[in-house]
Amino acid sequence: MQGLMQDWPLLIHRIIDHAAIQHGGRKVISRSIEGPIHTTDYASIRRRALKVAQRLARDGIRDGDRVATLAWNTWRHLEAWYGITGIGAVYHTVNPRLFPDQQIWIINHAEDRVMMTDLTFVPLLEKLADKLPTIERYIVFTDGAHMPKTTLKNAVAYEDWIAEVDGDFAWASFDENTAAGMCYTSGTTGHPKGVLYSHRSNVLHAFMAALPDSKGLRSNDVCMPVVPLFHANGWSLAFSTPMVGSTFVLPGAKMDGPSIYELLDTYKVTFTAAVPTVWLMLLQHMEANNLKLPYLKRVVIGGSACPRAMTEKFEKNYGVEVIHAWGMTEMSPLGSLCTMKPDYAGLTGTARLDLQQTQGHPPFGVEMKITDDNGRVLPWDGKTFGRLKVRGPAVAREYFKGDGGDILDDDGFFDTGDVATIDPHGYMHVTDRAKDVIKSGGEWISTIELENLAVGHPKVAEAAVIGAPHPKWDERPLLIVVLKEGERATREELLDFMRDKVAKWWLPDDVAFVTEIPHTATGKIQKTTLREQFKSHVLPTVEAAE
Amino acid sequence: MQGLMQDWPLLIHRIIDHAAIQHGGRKVISRSIEGPIHTTDYASIRRRALKVAQRLARDGIRDGDRVATLAWNTWRHLEAWYGITGIGAVYHTVNPRLFPDQQIWIINHAEDRVMMTDLTFVPLLEKLADKLPTIERYIVFTDGAHMPKTTLKNAVAYEDWIAEVDGDFAWASFDENTAAGMCYTSGTTGHPKGVLYSHRSNVLHAFMAALPDSKGLRSNDVCMPVVPLFHANGWSLAFSTPMVGSTFVLPGAKMDGPSIYELLDTYKVTFTAAVPTVWLMLLQHMEANNLKLPYLKRVVIGGSACPRAMTEKFEKNYGVEVIHAWGMTEMSPLGSLCTMKPDYAGLTGTARLDLQQTQGHPPFGVEMKITDDNGRVLPWDGKTFGRLKVRGPAVAREYFKGDGGDILDDDGFFDTGDVATIDPHGYMHVTDRAKDVIKSGGEWISTIELENLAVGHPKVAEAAVIGAPHPKWDERPLLIVVLKEGERATREELLDFMRDKVAKWWLPDDVAFVTEIPHTATGKIQKTTLREQFKSHVLPTVEAAE
Repeated sequence: MQGLMQDWPLLIHRIIDHAAIQHGGRKVISRSIEGPIHTTDYASIRRRALKVAQRLARDGIRDGDRVATLAWNTWRHLEAWYGITGIGAVYHTVNPRLFPDQQIWIINHAEDRVMMTDLTFVPLLEKLADKLPTIERYIVFTDGAHMPKTTLKNAVAYEDWIAEVDGDFAWASFDENTAAGMCYTSGTTGHPKGVLYSHRSNVLHAFMAALPDSKGLRSNDVCMPVVPLFHANGWSLAFSTPMVGSTFVLPGAKMDGPSIYELLDTYKVTFTAAVPTVWLMLLQHMEANNLKLPYLKRVVIGGSACPRAMTEKFEKNYGVEVIHAWGMTEMSPLGSLCTMKPDYAGLTGTARLDLQQTQGHPPFGVEMKITDDNGRVLPWDGKTFGRLKVRGPAVAREYFKGDGGDILDDDGFFDTGDVATIDPHGYMHVTDRAKDVIKSGGEWISTIELENLAVGHPKVAEAAVIGAPHPKWDERPLLIVVLKEGERATREELLDFMRDKVAKWWLPDDVAFVTEIPHTATGKIQKTTLREQFKSHVLPTVEAAE
Repeated sequence: MQGLMQDWPLLIHRIIDHAAIQHGGRKVISRSIEGPIHTTDYASIRRRALKVAQRLARDGIRDGDRVATLAWNTWRHLEAWYGITGIGAVYHTVNPRLFPDQQIWIINHAEDRVMMTDLTFVPLLEKLADKLPTIERYIVFTDGAHMPKTTLKNAVAYEDWIAEVDGDFAWASFDENTAAGMCYTSGTTGHPKGVLYSHRSNVLHAFMAALPDSKGLRSNDVCMPVVPLFHANGWSLAFSTPMVGSTFVLPGAKMDGPSIYELLDTYKVTFTAAVPTVWLMLLQHMEANNLKLPYLKRVVIGGSACPRAMTEKFEKNYGVEVIHAWGMTEMSPLGSLCTMKPDYAGLTGTARLDLQQTQGHPPFGVEMKITDDNGRVLPWDGKTFGRLKVRGPAVAREYFKGDGGDILDDDGFFDTGDVATIDPHGYMHVTDRAKDVIKSGGEWISTIELENLAVGHPKVAEAAVIGAPHPKWDERPLLIVVLKEGERATREELLDFMRDKVAKWWLPDDVAFVTEIPHTATGKIQKTTLREQFKSHVLPTVEAAE
């Protein structure tokens, strides 16, 4: 028997409708690419998003068509997302930090028909355009006065383009499982793979993200996503913020310390979110200039592990609550947030910081398990680590065009590729990537833990740990180190430093000194390259074992 | 094109799964019907709910079957809801405050197969049982030791009944639109009509209810629903509380001031919800005994309008934030909550109390409009009042068995039967019931406002206003008054008191003094009876008009 409740599909444009009706005058403040601060409100965002929808429809863009955006966080980018999805088309965010070859590959694979971009990226796109045959026209997020001369096909200034329609238009109606957004994963190996969000997944994920124990967003918050919309679906902030009607502050292209601080202070931002690198720049700027953060209450830090010192500084020196978070493009992207359950409410000082090194617990709508290589479920004791697998309405079931094949296990869980522990209260801690973890005599050794330990040595600038082949143990850890400018150190010196701080059998078998460690375009250590580089490296323990 | 996210239907049992996994040790504390305080946790609630599901299945209860509950808020009632819905059956809450004839009618109309009830109601049910042919067995929420001798068919103590299975059982899988719960409206006229919630509507509604600007529930809250589960789907608390993992306090059968105070104080309740009557008893008890509420932070007051003095006392004397709320059985039931948007964040004193007399604003997922009798949309100016209509995924589209016919307008909105204003910031204020509003010369007069005004007179105990027929104006207000014990007053005295406080044309044309005003079983003024009683009443203004 079916319930008798209304058929009200979870469509993204209902979010901007709600914001325009219930929070219509609430401000949306952006640092424009042209320079000045631009202020608008949700009612206007919706009106202009309807024009985007109407104008795209006139250009022949239809249900399921992909519209690329290569752009910073501004009001125009936000309008574009709602306009694109409002006719059943799909926003495809392209990451400007990828290598040009990757961008070309992604845009062609997605078969994007339109490219919406910022002034910043016009020169880049002019170089790539020859290799982007599916793009029919380029729309530049600016007005006629700022529009550059360009060779880009059918290029038009966004303001001129939407001025060609009157906005007398209604959102399209369709099934809530209709595709809405697309973001490619930036894997360290192989081609990127496309994740395809639906209207339903984005709306449900916004609910999950806004809950009090997640981001806890409300209408009297002033929310600034420093994390770009092109980074893993913008951490849901384009949806969860209008859903609750917070004031919105969008930082445009400038993410340096002084620029971010200026917005935080001027617009009394209460909530913000970004990767650790951004906060490092902010903290350095504030320390150098003796600045304070009287308005900021919460900062979500994710994308990579939040250093302990960063959490400590934010909380102790600035009175800002740090919410360490974890997720991935395949998860829309939020998987867990480290907010305090009552079980840990009493923690202070070091114990609290220890807990905040974990990536926290999932909201309702994300299920987690950790398993061994054979899929056997492992205990939640905070010590045992295994492959982290997730399930939920905002988790990918497959990649675009079926790339990568079947990605779910028999119970429908997606393997995150991370290795993690989960404690008895559900707090998850990522200890490594599954492909990096070292398997020594059937037991796992976390390379991340060893790297964190090694960089604690005063002479070490950067460290990477990989598994080197070993006849007896299969693999043993090899520590690869870049010393700080002008420093010298010996193998023994570093191993002695680490010796008392890890289990004896975790201690690297050897240390290699290098002048540089290779990185991906998004700043991750390229371990595949390191493994290739050190494939002939013979551990000093090998001979002894043979 | 469809998105490629996982198929993860919104099923109620996923909520108790999440609570058991992420908040398994969090306490669920009940005042038992047998007397003592009973303490359990979410992990145990889930284990026992699985037994309920398994045991019902063994009794032949299947997908779509209705299982009645006539019971107070206890852990067993909570387990029953999850157990019933976990096999696709439907909990049907029966309100013990209804007249026996209504209870019989409702149970037969629902064709309930099983009745789960408290010790409290065994004597009542023994009297009704002959007239309840569809009920195959009675399960009493108690253990063998407390089980009374009873004539009820196949009666069994709940604890004995679930002890017959081992709990090795899995929730059923089905479509999220499957019926989950049922609650009959207690209309003032005609037969009650059944509202049929789905799994989807209950899960989405729990998200809406838990948002920071709604109830703002989090795991470190201690949540006590004094509002019974049988009152309008328990205001979602059976779902929104485990969804976020708050500690749960269930007050059982005792809702008097001392009993409620004892729980609030002993278990450090931070969040509670009930109708004004309950809070009146609590406030009287606290005033008489000079008690405080050091732990309580927020109280949701709904079901009927929250008196201004109550809001003032809670906030000023006890430091508790009052959240005035509005909803109805047909809305799962929350429609709006009066939390502060930034537009009103600066309000204090009288201005804040004025705003708190409104029923607040809807969360994402509830759409509202006000219209005239012809369906024309009226402005949101805080003054114009019209029929309040709503739309959303947790709003009814029709009643059980099609009773009442088509209940949606052409745009899919449900007419709430309330008359309301909405202000420019979306704050809704119920001014009357549509069937009670007086239509005088094409303009509407709110009977509730006149009644509130009349009871402000020191001699008036209770007041009702109805429309009396008038040849020129169609209807004019007739004020019907019960004076306080031993008081005497004249028509002129009361009208003079009201004269300067309303628009001239709103002033009642006459006053009738009575010794009693008729009420429904749930305490609402029975205006149909009053209209019948006063149908021959001739207004003194009639002759003048003719």
